[in-house]
Amino acid sequence: RYFHFCKLPGRVMGIRLLRFTSMVIIVLLLVAGALTALLPNIKDDKMPNLRREPKTQSQSALDSFTLIMQTYNRTDLLLKLLNHYQAIPHLHKIIVVWNNIGEKTPEEMWNSLGPHPVPVVFKVQTVNRMRNRLQNFPELETKAVLMMDDDTLVSAHDLAFAFSVWQQFPGHIVGFVPRKHISTPSGVYSYGSFELQSPGFGNGDHYSMVLIGAAFFHSGYLEDFQRQPESVYALIDETQNCDDIAMNFLVAKHTGKPSGVFVKPVDIRNLEKDTNSGYSGMWHRAEHLLQRSYCVNKLVNIYDGMPLKYSNIMISQFGFPNYANHKNKM
Amino acid sequence: RYFHFCKLPGRVMGIRLLRFTSMVIIVLLLVAGALTALLPNIKDDKMPNLRREPKTQSQSALDSFTLIMQTYNRTDLLLKLLNHYQAIPHLHKIIVVWNNIGEKTPEEMWNSLGPHPVPVVFKVQTVNRMRNRLQNFPELETKAVLMMDDDTLVSAHDLAFAFSVWQQFPGHIVGFVPRKHISTPSGVYSYGSFELQSPGFGNGDHYSMVLIGAAFFHSGYLEDFQRQPESVYALIDETQNCDDIAMNFLVAKHTGKPSGVFVKPVDIRNLEKDTNSGYSGMWHRAEHLLQRSYCVNKLVNIYDGMPLKYSNIMISQFGFPNYANHKNKM
Repeated sequence: RYFHFCKLPGRVMGIRLLRFTSMVIIVLLLVAGALTALLPNIKDDKMPNLRREPKTQSQSALDSFTLIMQTYNRTDLLLKLLNHYQAIPHLHKIIVVWNNIGEKTPEEMWNSLGPHPVPVVFKVQTVNRMRNRLQNFPELETKAVLMMDDDTLVSAHDLAFAFSVWQQFPGHIVGFVPRKHISTPSGVYSYGSFELQSPGFGNGDHYSMVLIGAAFFHSGYLEDFQRQPESVYALIDETQNCDDIAMNFLVAKHTGKPSGVFVKPVDIRNLEKDTNSGYSGMWHRAEHLLQRSYCVNKLVNIYDGMPLKYSNIMISQFGFPNYANHKNKM
Repeated sequence: RYFHFCKLPGRVMGIRLLRFTSMVIIVLLLVAGALTALLPNIKDDKMPNLRREPKTQSQSALDSFTLIMQTYNRTDLLLKLLNHYQAIPHLHKIIVVWNNIGEKTPEEMWNSLGPHPVPVVFKVQTVNRMRNRLQNFPELETKAVLMMDDDTLVSAHDLAFAFSVWQQFPGHIVGFVPRKHISTPSGVYSYGSFELQSPGFGNGDHYSMVLIGAAFFHSGYLEDFQRQPESVYALIDETQNCDDIAMNFLVAKHTGKPSGVFVKPVDIRNLEKDTNSGYSGMWHRAEHLLQRSYCVNKLVNIYDGMPLKYSNIMISQFGFPNYANHKNKM
């Protein structure tokens, strides 16, 4: 063919050849460029949302976390907890997800009792949905989210330590409440805590989820959550439950590893009996655990497989609270 | 230029253009190929020795470990421990580093009491050196090494768990004995266990080394150890001590992270009082700890800086031995 080309008027042929060569070079450079984009950032675990952080991002946004606390019908507990959590080290901001539809937030009272160590944002919701707390809030500036239920009190020591652990496992849900799923011979899964024995599993126990009601996770997962199949949202709305199970499925699918890292808390308390409202929380509903087993099986259908993986790693803080908690008889 | 080319005899010019284009394509493909080689194996931590494993390597060599046990003047303990360790799950082979110069190994007796679950190799040494155990033994086929002192008994449960932890942290020394260094205002470092308080460190404790006398680490570090400055070998030979501190410096320098991951042992025992030999181990020497502080400072000179980093992560096995060891009051 090149014989033929060279017989044509020089200028036209030259241009065609040059264009052809140039296009080949450009295509190959694009391929090379695409491959370089696959090179890893060695420091990070497999991260959600490969977006590049702008270099102007403040140091505090990298070394601090945002507390997201959803609340319904327990404003007395909320305010008690806000007084505790507002002073946790490395806290950047608090986002209160206000599920008390039609009711005024305590923002005025909060402001009148200022100044406060960190800003608090009250996000008024239009519908009382469990998954409201999983929105990608624009006020969220930090990489890390601490999500807490509005009846759970975790000590500052535990939180400071767990945050440092999350910084070493940023792709995982690092928290205080482990749960697991069980496979059964019928192929139907069951959800449980530790009254359940894994069949055929002799040595110790394991967990496959860490609940997000007392955990740190990467804010990128909130962004990822917005891109899930509609049936996931429908499931959570139908049950008013299982948003945390869905998040564990999401994370496990994303990383290919166990979704959570369990940090054994020294001081974690449930304050629900202390509320004046008489409202005692969703997990007291008779069907609560059965719903969660139901959710596990539905999510396996939706995601076409079981992505959850088991772990038996339990992390504690060396030398705390007992200065010699690592000693042995040797 | 292309005008000019097209004026020349068609065949010659065509070949030159074709060659040129081909060479450009080939160069760009090579560049692309080189970039693909930089893509990570997502599973591994930052590994020593980026050598490529031959695809024919047996599965067992990847999922098993080699026990390296150095022994001096405690053959009765050695044989007791060999009976215990020979049956540990995932053990591939045992290498006994025989520091009893001029004395026959118990190989005959060992063979007469066969068969044994795994092969044992007795490596006869010519000089009684502490660092003999840090050779890059050709018999070593596995990625993982378990190094044990010849008076230390760790339960099979602990070893199986710690091995699984090492597989998740393959670039670290994963073991049962944490130690630390202390910075002092004078700039001189001190070595210690947990009778020492880190100045200005309020919350719990931390460690900066995991001793290799009861730990898993990557066999590639033995290869790396052969390439250290001569002064490191001189220091270890001079003190007959500190080979483990030197390994922690090596690993910390290599990873830029804390060298070790501490796994809290459930059942670890020191058998030295049980020996008939009356030999009670190097650490009883009066100068032992002072030597180790001395070594820390010498190594900082040799490596031109302090590479050790602190960690406060303590790992235990979820649900073992106490099935409810993760429960809390909530």
